[in-house]
Amino acid sequence: MAETFADRLVAAIDQKKAPICVGVDPIFEMLPDAVAGSCEDRDANDAEGAIDAIFDFTAAVLKIVAPLVPVVKFQSAYFEKYYAEGVEAYYSLVQEAKELGLLVIGDVKRGDIGSTASAYAAGHLADGPYGEQDEMVTPDAITVNPMLGLDTLEPFVKTAKEYRKGLFVLVRTSNPGSADFQDVLLQDGRSWSEMVADKLAPVAEGMVGASGFSSIGAVVGATQTHTMESLRKRLPKSIFLLPGYGAQGATAEMTRAAFINGQGAIVSASRSILYAHREKKYEGVGDWKKCVERAVVDMRGDLVGVVEKA
Amino acid sequence: MAETFADRLVAAIDQKKAPICVGVDPIFEMLPDAVAGSCEDRDANDAEGAIDAIFDFTAAVLKIVAPLVPVVKFQSAYFEKYYAEGVEAYYSLVQEAKELGLLVIGDVKRGDIGSTASAYAAGHLADGPYGEQDEMVTPDAITVNPMLGLDTLEPFVKTAKEYRKGLFVLVRTSNPGSADFQDVLLQDGRSWSEMVADKLAPVAEGMVGASGFSSIGAVVGATQTHTMESLRKRLPKSIFLLPGYGAQGATAEMTRAAFINGQGAIVSASRSILYAHREKKYEGVGDWKKCVERAVVDMRGDLVGVVEKA
Repeated sequence: MAETFADRLVAAIDQKKAPICVGVDPIFEMLPDAVAGSCEDRDANDAEGAIDAIFDFTAAVLKIVAPLVPVVKFQSAYFEKYYAEGVEAYYSLVQEAKELGLLVIGDVKRGDIGSTASAYAAGHLADGPYGEQDEMVTPDAITVNPMLGLDTLEPFVKTAKEYRKGLFVLVRTSNPGSADFQDVLLQDGRSWSEMVADKLAPVAEGMVGASGFSSIGAVVGATQTHTMESLRKRLPKSIFLLPGYGAQGATAEMTRAAFINGQGAIVSASRSILYAHREKKYEGVGDWKKCVERAVVDMRGDLVGVVEKA
Repeated sequence: MAETFADRLVAAIDQKKAPICVGVDPIFEMLPDAVAGSCEDRDANDAEGAIDAIFDFTAAVLKIVAPLVPVVKFQSAYFEKYYAEGVEAYYSLVQEAKELGLLVIGDVKRGDIGSTASAYAAGHLADGPYGEQDEMVTPDAITVNPMLGLDTLEPFVKTAKEYRKGLFVLVRTSNPGSADFQDVLLQDGRSWSEMVADKLAPVAEGMVGASGFSSIGAVVGATQTHTMESLRKRLPKSIFLLPGYGAQGATAEMTRAAFINGQGAIVSASRSILYAHREKKYEGVGDWKKCVERAVVDMRGDLVGVVEKA
């Protein structure tokens, strides 16, 4: 694994011809009946049953999407909900995804100071020996929260460099309330997010690979069209991870300004793919697996025009 | 448990006569030889051995500090470093601390959008049935990161209300680089942290208990004296959790502005207590346990003057 994370991601996007990240947000209540039983039979208090269903569902989703997309993003919260057993399932599924040839982003949004950040980096980005028998496998990249300051990113950057992994730093999130603290204007006229982007740029410059892109990427909500162009200019080397497509309302067209000559961005969708079987649009397509597959293919079709014209 | 988290915390501080939170940051490399073996024998790659040592060390620390302080704060990162097994130890030790009569803060610094935040809140704040045999016990309060926006705090607030728990929202952190993104000035002259505090105040007002304090507290680094008074005025009902005392350089005197008539703040120290056996000052005091005890007693003595005069 001599290539940088960014180079591996760029190559995988090219190979699959899809700048798509499938978000793994397994919510027990939303799983197909075929996996988790009918709604009446489902017992949310049966944690073991819920974890089993989530495991089976996610493993099946990974097999369906592996030939179609370069990368998946696991949302840690839906595993942490089930305490240590959920976390165990998370790491098993990360390994399963990697064995299927997928790149994996751990959406953990961690951020803390000094040696605490080092410990998070060790647990979430560092592969290595684990006891006598096991080799632990962690994601290829994780999301991190920069609020605490640039010094708190350093331990993550160090670990990412050492293990040829990547980071996606939260710069502008996709949620309705994201403007509260991220869009406020500073005295020099920049928004807080623009200032974060400017300070992050030299860090990203330090990890540029042969592809020309950096392994220090940025999370920018696909819903944030008013600032996409500005953030793209400020972070020319970062791969943008764009959540918010589909269920959160962003369209393919809204992602256009994130791409540079058709490269440098991945659009992430979770519920619109995972739970496609619940949508009217996919009635009659077949079972839930067929719906997942169709939703990915549709999304790819939807994005092709934007990426090619970009 | 009819009382709010804030009321329980205020009562416990009064009872122990110590506005002190002991931070549990168990770092394998720093553990006493008596627990983890001599440095030469220690194998950082033996994860199971490390978890066992961390477990024994933390359990012993909890027993020493339980009669002396009202609350402990577990730093999740040092457990997550050991993947699911570490997380399992975290929850066991949280339960052990609560059985010893300690209040427990989970220092997890989580923050995410919508239903993802709900899942984090469920895993970290919601006690309840877990499978057929077990009852899961979670911390009395957790730290949360507000960067993503006020709407992302709502699911945490909802769960805290439902389970009579608390939150400590990061407002101004203790690390050297915290000024990068938190001290920047907005067009109206407030710092970014001051603006966060202002927006948080009405949320805190909504959870004020009989003690007059809110279960929505704030993390403000004890090192941040330049802004302590301003943040205290903006968040008059929030209990301040003040990290940075001891190893990070803050003194008792530096915490003065956080107290209101001797109430409403807890000073957190981790390494200066846990690893007191490594400090010259405690040479000759006895074994590592005696050093931990003495460090807590010294810290209490150090703070008494400040709290009483405040």
